[in-house]
Amino acid sequence: MDNQKIHMNGGDGPKSYAKNSEYQKQVVGYSKRVLNELIHQQLDVGINPHFNPCNPFHIADFGCSVGRNTYLAAQNIVEAVEQKYKSNEDRENPLLVPEFFVFFNDLVQNDFNTLFSYIDSNKPNYYIAGVPGSFHGRVFPKAFLHFAHSSMALLYLSRIPEEVMNRDSAAWNKGVIHYSCSGAAKEVEAAYSTQFRKDIEAFLDARDKELVPGGLMVITTLGILDGVLPCECAMGVTFSILGSCLDDMANVGIISEEKLDSFNLPYYYTSQMELETLIKAHGCFDITRFEKLPTPLRQVVHDVQTAVLSIRVVTEALFQQHFGKDITEELFQRCAEKFRSHPVIYDDKYRTEASYFVFLKRKTETSKPGI
Amino acid sequence: MDNQKIHMNGGDGPKSYAKNSEYQKQVVGYSKRVLNELIHQQLDVGINPHFNPCNPFHIADFGCSVGRNTYLAAQNIVEAVEQKYKSNEDRENPLLVPEFFVFFNDLVQNDFNTLFSYIDSNKPNYYIAGVPGSFHGRVFPKAFLHFAHSSMALLYLSRIPEEVMNRDSAAWNKGVIHYSCSGAAKEVEAAYSTQFRKDIEAFLDARDKELVPGGLMVITTLGILDGVLPCECAMGVTFSILGSCLDDMANVGIISEEKLDSFNLPYYYTSQMELETLIKAHGCFDITRFEKLPTPLRQVVHDVQTAVLSIRVVTEALFQQHFGKDITEELFQRCAEKFRSHPVIYDDKYRTEASYFVFLKRKTETSKPGI
Repeated sequence: MDNQKIHMNGGDGPKSYAKNSEYQKQVVGYSKRVLNELIHQQLDVGINPHFNPCNPFHIADFGCSVGRNTYLAAQNIVEAVEQKYKSNEDRENPLLVPEFFVFFNDLVQNDFNTLFSYIDSNKPNYYIAGVPGSFHGRVFPKAFLHFAHSSMALLYLSRIPEEVMNRDSAAWNKGVIHYSCSGAAKEVEAAYSTQFRKDIEAFLDARDKELVPGGLMVITTLGILDGVLPCECAMGVTFSILGSCLDDMANVGIISEEKLDSFNLPYYYTSQMELETLIKAHGCFDITRFEKLPTPLRQVVHDVQTAVLSIRVVTEALFQQHFGKDITEELFQRCAEKFRSHPVIYDDKYRTEASYFVFLKRKTETSKPGI
Repeated sequence: MDNQKIHMNGGDGPKSYAKNSEYQKQVVGYSKRVLNELIHQQLDVGINPHFNPCNPFHIADFGCSVGRNTYLAAQNIVEAVEQKYKSNEDRENPLLVPEFFVFFNDLVQNDFNTLFSYIDSNKPNYYIAGVPGSFHGRVFPKAFLHFAHSSMALLYLSRIPEEVMNRDSAAWNKGVIHYSCSGAAKEVEAAYSTQFRKDIEAFLDARDKELVPGGLMVITTLGILDGVLPCECAMGVTFSILGSCLDDMANVGIISEEKLDSFNLPYYYTSQMELETLIKAHGCFDITRFEKLPTPLRQVVHDVQTAVLSIRVVTEALFQQHFGKDITEELFQRCAEKFRSHPVIYDDKYRTEASYFVFLKRKTETSKPGI
C-alpha cells in the first residue's frame, strides 16, 4: 500500500472530515500567535530580493485535505505576511504589499471539489489553486514558493514498510494493525521509524528545491513525548482497541484472518528528539523554533461518541479500502462499546502525545544537488 | 442566471463530457499545427526577459472542463514552447528549457476531481494546478502567465441578458430558448450580442493584467460565418427542435409554461467580423492570426444518436438545473424523434457554423489602468 490511497472522509456530511476536525482547527489556532511573531522576525522583506513585493507571494499548504483548517491556516499566513510588509519601518516609503497566491496541495484522490467550494464561499482576497500530487516528491517548480505550511500531514507515511507485511521478517505485524498496538514487536516500530525517516528526507529534499532561499516553512505534527512508549499513549490504546475489534470480527468470520494480518495503519508518531535530529541531519533548513503546542481538546474529550467519530473521520477510508465498505459501521460500534469500559478517555496518564510546531527557514546557500 | 452554474456533464460515464467531446478534440488537433508555427514565430525567447528559462513558464487553460482535450491542448503548447527554446540558433550556447507549470481553470462547480485523476494518469512532465473561478474576472496575479489558452469556452455567456427575461422588454424571449430559434425577435439577438461584448471585454481586461508583456494567447470558439442568420445554421435548428420539444412537454403539463418562458441557453455564436472588431477595439492585444478551422466532424455526423448525445453532454446540466433532473431523459428522446424527420443532420446547407482560431500577442506597452 502506498499513500496514494490515503484521504480523509470527503464531502461535508456528519461523518466528514470537514465537519469533524476540531482538534486540527485548534492546532491551527494555537500556531497563529507564534506564526505572527516568527514571520515578523524571520521574513527577509526589503533585504532578500526574492521577497520583492512587485512579484506575487506564493504560499503552499501541503496535505490540505478538504476543510476549513487549510483555509484558516492560509488566512493566518497571508495576514501575518501582509502585516510584515506593512510594518516596514521607513514610513515615508512603505513597501508595497504583494499579491498573494495560495496553493492547496494534497493527493490526487483528495476531494478538491469540496475544498474549492468551501474556499470560494469564503471569498478570499488572494488567488487560489489546487495542486494534486504527493508531497513526498516535487509538485512545484524550483524556487517557486515563499512559504510552505504542512499541518498534521507528515504523520501519514508514504507507504507501509515492506517488512511489516513480510511473513518471513522479524517485523511482520501479524494480527495487530499498528506498531503502537500492545503485542507489536520492537522491529515493527523500527521499520515504521525507518520509513518515516525516508519520508521526511524526501519531503525536505522537495521543499528545499521548491522554496526560495530564505523561504519559510511551518510544520505541525502529532507525535509523542520523548521517551514515552507508543503503546502507552492514547493513540496506541485506541489502535489496540480497534485492532481487537477487528480480531473479534475475524473470529466470528466477518473478515478473514489473512485480511487482518495484511492491514496496517500508515501513521507514525515522531518525538521531538527524532524529528529535530532528522531536520538537522538533512541540513538545508535552519530550525528557528521547535515547540510543543498545548492541546486542551485532548484533555477534555470524555465523550465516547465524539472520541470514536474523531478517529472514524481519519481512518474510515483506510478500513473501507482494505476490508470493504460494509464493515466500518459495525467496527466503530464495537469500538464504542470497548471504549466505554476503558479508562483511556478520562485518565490523564494516557495524555502522552504531543503536537509539535516547527518553524524552519531554508538556508540561503545553494541547495543539495539531485532531484 | 449567471455562469457560475454552467458546467459540462461530469464524471467519465457514457453520457459524460469527458467521453463525448470528439468535436472539441478535433479542434485541438487542428490548432496544433498552426500553434507550432506561430509559437515559433512569436515567442520572444532570448529577447524578452519575461521568457528567461531560469524561471518557470506558466501556461493556463481557461474553461478547461474535465476531459482529455484540455490535457492535449496543454501538451501541444508545452511541446511547441520546448521546441522554441531548443531551436535557439546559437548552437554553442543553447538556451536552457524552463520548467513548465500548467494551470487548469474553470468555474468552481467544475469536476476538478475527475480532471486531476485524468491528468495524473497521463503522468505529464510538467507541474499542474487547478484554478477555480470565472475567467471573466481575475484568477491570477498580474504578469504571472506566459501563455493563455481558451478552447470553446468563450461562447458561454457569463449571464443571460436581463431584458431577455423581462416581460416588458422587446427582447423578452417568450416560448423560445435561444436567440437563434425560429420565432425569436431581433432584439433577443441584440441583447445576447451586447452581453457577449461585455464578456469579451472582461475576459481581455483580465488576461491583459495576467499575461506578461509579449505573452501569447490562443482562443478557439464556435461561431457562424459572416452574414449568416443564426436561425439558419445547424445550432439554430437544433435549439429550435429542443425548444419545440419543451413546448410539447409544456402542452401536456410535464413542465410549466412559465418555466419554459424563463429558460434561455447561455451560448453566443460570434462571427469573425464581430470578434475581430471587439479585440481591436479593446486595444491590448495584437491579432497575429485569425482563421477559420476546418471542422470535418460537423460534416460527417449523419447519425441521430451521436448528434443528440453531443448536444446532451453540453446542455443537460442546464436543463436539469432549471426544470429538474427528471425531464431530460424524455426531452432528449423527443429530440431524437424530431431529428429523424429533419434534414439538419445530413443537409450541408445547415453547415454555416465555423470554428475560429485566434492567436493574440499581448502588447508590450503598459496595460490599461483599472481592475
